[in-house]
Amino acid sequence: MKVPTAAILVIGDEILSGKVEDANARLLIGELRELGVALRRILIVPDDVDDVAKAVRELSASFDHVFTSGGVGPTHDDVTIVGIAAAFETSVIRHPELERRLKSVFGDGADESKLRMADVPGNAELLEMPDWRWPVLVCRNVYILPGVPELFRKKFLAMRERFRVEPFFTHAVYTLEEEFDIAAGLREIADAHPSVAIGSYPNFATPDYKVKVTLESKDNAALDACLTTLMTKLDGGRIVRRE
Amino acid sequence: MKVPTAAILVIGDEILSGKVEDANARLLIGELRELGVALRRILIVPDDVDDVAKAVRELSASFDHVFTSGGVGPTHDDVTIVGIAAAFETSVIRHPELERRLKSVFGDGADESKLRMADVPGNAELLEMPDWRWPVLVCRNVYILPGVPELFRKKFLAMRERFRVEPFFTHAVYTLEEEFDIAAGLREIADAHPSVAIGSYPNFATPDYKVKVTLESKDNAALDACLTTLMTKLDGGRIVRRE
Repeated sequence: MKVPTAAILVIGDEILSGKVEDANARLLIGELRELGVALRRILIVPDDVDDVAKAVRELSASFDHVFTSGGVGPTHDDVTIVGIAAAFETSVIRHPELERRLKSVFGDGADESKLRMADVPGNAELLEMPDWRWPVLVCRNVYILPGVPELFRKKFLAMRERFRVEPFFTHAVYTLEEEFDIAAGLREIADAHPSVAIGSYPNFATPDYKVKVTLESKDNAALDACLTTLMTKLDGGRIVRRE
Repeated sequence: MKVPTAAILVIGDEILSGKVEDANARLLIGELRELGVALRRILIVPDDVDDVAKAVRELSASFDHVFTSGGVGPTHDDVTIVGIAAAFETSVIRHPELERRLKSVFGDGADESKLRMADVPGNAELLEMPDWRWPVLVCRNVYILPGVPELFRKKFLAMRERFRVEPFFTHAVYTLEEEFDIAAGLREIADAHPSVAIGSYPNFATPDYKVKVTLESKDNAALDACLTTLMTKLDGGRIVRRE
């Protein structure tokens, strides 16, 4: 079962310097999960053309979907379009349809600062949605989204269904056993059930459990078989709860 | 003025799948800022040896300090040590001093699952602190920190002062002007003040201001000169506040 993969590229000095807390990667983590897409990378880089270009080149080649956040406004620190054009070895062009729309909105006020919003990588396609006044740019498998959280959310939620595939199935078991004492058993199970991802997360913050073991797969039958095996390896009397 | 740079590498399927929200990168963003260190990358990768190895190799070569979070426990999904060893083309060795400590704590209970905690990359050094029972491993410029937030925080806060350099100085100006209308002016200022980082952040969420302009530098005199220029470019009557 081929699971589509995704990467998020957040572009912005303001995130790395702590001026603004990331909201967009956080939103996409939950969204992609719910859509059945396997998120494999989150990368946050500064407002630097070379950093953006290198990141987009690598992520686009490695994952099925790439979502960029930020760096698409009219000011000098907005370098995403130039960086993505460089990633695909194309130049930045002024898109005639976008230029037409800007002129129809701004009329004589459509100066160079505003018309720069029509500048796109040479390979960009326009993704349009019924209630959008402005399209999302798509370069090959890279979706270029705005950094402003309200706009990012609105754009992503409108286009999310195009990414939906079969869901992930999961189980979680909370135990009072020590992680040291279940490690060997978990390793055996992981080797025997390659289609199930098994996670082990120790908890030191509260006394109610010591380890949370998670099982996850797109194959529900394999998941159930793995859970059955897991329950034979754990001490039933020390299991606190299951989810 | 050479500003030391840093990267954060978070290792963990649980972050990418949304089971656990990252707390460690978020902590370091604020800490590094306060210490005067320029954070240039945050990268989140799965529990995969090759992904960790490639990330560590690149980040270690590109930045002054690298901090890894997670993947250092005793279970099969803890691959950070193997990944970092691969990054530095060294093998994993059982460290005699760490093995000795584990045996003194666990006695006859020091089985293979526990002794694996003494396995380190061949080039690892032990960073010890007065109130630590267990050192932090350092491989060249890579600090290997635990993923459990309470432990991550405790370790980092104990060693933070070794990274402190001169602070960043900042100003922020909030204006009711549109970003389109100040873009050309900001570009001129950015070109004329290369030692000052100038950010422009539009606000659509509240009506009290439209753009926050930030200035930042390690050179306070250059920063003040840049602010003076900025104030001549902005419409004084539409400035809401300054910070």
